[in-house]
Amino acid sequence: MKAIQDFYPEEFAHCYGCGRANARGLHLKSYVDGTETVARFTPADLYSGGYPGHVYGGMIASLLDCHGTASAAAFALRERGLEWGHGQDPIRFVTASLRIEYKRPTPLGVELVIRGSLSSLDGRKATIALSLSAADELCASAEMLAIEYRRKTRAP
Amino acid sequence: MKAIQDFYPEEFAHCYGCGRANARGLHLKSYVDGTETVARFTPADLYSGGYPGHVYGGMIASLLDCHGTASAAAFALRERGLEWGHGQDPIRFVTASLRIEYKRPTPLGVELVIRGSLSSLDGRKATIALSLSAADELCASAEMLAIEYRRKTRAP
Repeated sequence: MKAIQDFYPEEFAHCYGCGRANARGLHLKSYVDGTETVARFTPADLYSGGYPGHVYGGMIASLLDCHGTASAAAFALRERGLEWGHGQDPIRFVTASLRIEYKRPTPLGVELVIRGSLSSLDGRKATIALSLSAADELCASAEMLAIEYRRKTRAP
Repeated sequence: MKAIQDFYPEEFAHCYGCGRANARGLHLKSYVDGTETVARFTPADLYSGGYPGHVYGGMIASLLDCHGTASAAAFALRERGLEWGHGQDPIRFVTASLRIEYKRPTPLGVELVIRGSLSSLDGRKATIALSLSAADELCASAEMLAIEYRRKTRAP
């Protein structure tokens, strides 16, 4: 199954967190899962937090951020009754704001599950609710405001 | 001059973003600068955002997060009339929440300047205002709620 990021136009596919064109990146892959989106990722040991055995906060933010903008693109497409890869203009959102609540330490060496759901879509503005869990325990939640990038505007 | 992170106890110095004990980490260094704190960092090219030539959002979050918890430790020490390295118990804060506003794309290949100031300190809770600029242009701002880790509690 193709991931949402696989449909990003090549010029927007260089993100360290999720871009297929970034050879040294993390290559996070996000998928539509019913009415939600989901991504799964197991950070390598080097991404430790201050205290060993836990994931550093920046990695958690990265996963939420990349999955959030992917989710926004998928939800915008769905709300407009479109499907990926059917000739429509590529859709790509960028983050305007991201509020993360760190609920508990996130363990290293465990698959993290990141989920997204659409809270609202108003024109180019999508609000996405996000969660990051390890072994079914919620470790972080977030709310993202994402804005659709329009090719007519200046390059981001 | 020693950085704030140089005073972290060894067991809390493993962070990928700023831990001196993480051999493969970014080693962000934060310093007291008058009433504020400051860190300077130039991300390597691989940390590209989706569109080439800009920094990915997760890196921006990482820099704000690591600098924010360092700032919280420095401000708490100052407010208590203490100085680093004078035998007091080590002070280490962890992030409870982080709200980031992405103001404009952050250029790659430019030194980023991250600044922190204390908004409030109430017992173990510090609220820190953060900014990230490139060539004197504000690219992102953030507000962090950080909580002081106490050794009596379980390991984080």
